[in-house]
Amino acid sequence: MPKLEAYDKKLDYSYCLGIFPCHALLDAKPEMAMRLLLHPSGIGNEGVEKLRARCAALGIREEMAERVLKRESKKDNCFAAIVFKKYDCDLKKDDAHAVFCQISDGGNLGTASRAAVGFGYKSLAVIRPCVDVFDPHVLRASMGAFFRLNTHVFNSFDEYSSLFPDREMYPFMLDGAIDLNNAASKAGKVHTLIFGNEASGLPAVFQQYGQSVKIPQSDEIDSLNLAVAASIAMYTFKNISH
Amino acid sequence: MPKLEAYDKKLDYSYCLGIFPCHALLDAKPEMAMRLLLHPSGIGNEGVEKLRARCAALGIREEMAERVLKRESKKDNCFAAIVFKKYDCDLKKDDAHAVFCQISDGGNLGTASRAAVGFGYKSLAVIRPCVDVFDPHVLRASMGAFFRLNTHVFNSFDEYSSLFPDREMYPFMLDGAIDLNNAASKAGKVHTLIFGNEASGLPAVFQQYGQSVKIPQSDEIDSLNLAVAASIAMYTFKNISH
Repeated sequence: MPKLEAYDKKLDYSYCLGIFPCHALLDAKPEMAMRLLLHPSGIGNEGVEKLRARCAALGIREEMAERVLKRESKKDNCFAAIVFKKYDCDLKKDDAHAVFCQISDGGNLGTASRAAVGFGYKSLAVIRPCVDVFDPHVLRASMGAFFRLNTHVFNSFDEYSSLFPDREMYPFMLDGAIDLNNAASKAGKVHTLIFGNEASGLPAVFQQYGQSVKIPQSDEIDSLNLAVAASIAMYTFKNISH
Repeated sequence: MPKLEAYDKKLDYSYCLGIFPCHALLDAKPEMAMRLLLHPSGIGNEGVEKLRARCAALGIREEMAERVLKRESKKDNCFAAIVFKKYDCDLKKDDAHAVFCQISDGGNLGTASRAAVGFGYKSLAVIRPCVDVFDPHVLRASMGAFFRLNTHVFNSFDEYSSLFPDREMYPFMLDGAIDLNNAASKAGKVHTLIFGNEASGLPAVFQQYGQSVKIPQSDEIDSLNLAVAASIAMYTFKNISH
């Protein structure tokens, strides 16, 4: 087996760090798992032993790799990780979609992914330029929810929209034309929620790409955190729309 | 003037890092501002010059402090900070309150604070043991929203509840008795939303402390991120309750 390199965007594999995320990976994408990495201090831990048993049953080899775990997690107490092959997914036409344009913070993408799974948005489009979706930090922030999603990275929003024409599109903008609850109450099941960059939001042209939406908020803040805004939007569409 | 020390919880002052948060501090708590710290590369920047003008008008002295800015922000491009005196606030009896029990991640508290201001929850109770609310990292994650809040740290939840008896209390729990939209639709204006620790949530006894609430979510995730859950709750109570 080749030496495990320090994570880099260019590698064709990545690291899923932590017991809970590793179980999510084995639940959702077991065929991508390559190696189970273990820390000596984790042997005997219930979650670790469950991982070992699942990997043994799947024919995934295990190895002690304390140094790699410490290097990738930057922590001393990361007890397990799975090395997995990066993959690409197609979005499902009949799903509700969430689109993240030019998202730059991996923590935000991971946190939003967790909420996306929680609220049934299983098809996620990420528009370049963007954070590396396989960065171990993103996967970690998602608590492994990332593996339960169909995520596809597009070179542009046009590439996405030409592949999925004729959908209800809801770009979220600080100057959106209607309020979130109002938009959600009218929405059909097959829709697309669109979110922009953390600092700059969506370009003004998105006003023409569908029904723009705003989340009512006090002018005492500049905006909400991106993961928070996206999560509120997905929750509300899920629980107010029919 | 004394030497500015590396931030520590025990100091009676803290650092507000970044131009936008500094403006929020001057808007909301100008009397706490002690010194404006400047980076040579920021001189001429529009936001920095506005800060300098506001501080001059308020009699707050400025100084070049590149080394301190770098040390506290861990970045090379933090152009301004304000040293301010820590303070304590009383919660307002007639406000809706948000209570954070044993919150351990400063980023979560900061992000939730931003949403709290956005949705009109201006009185925040934080229950020990908890993250240091004046940690510069918390203030930064709040984008300065923290300064617009009345935040009080309590030694226990009992200390909070004995000071504010007879309020509608809504503890958020994974096994909450009713759904969020249902709870929000019945709530009066003067209520308290209660959130637990990131990993362990609220202890079971909180079921008895009011109307427990759950945010409906797929069992494919363990839970939502705490700041996300609190923000969804505050948004929904604000926009569905009467």
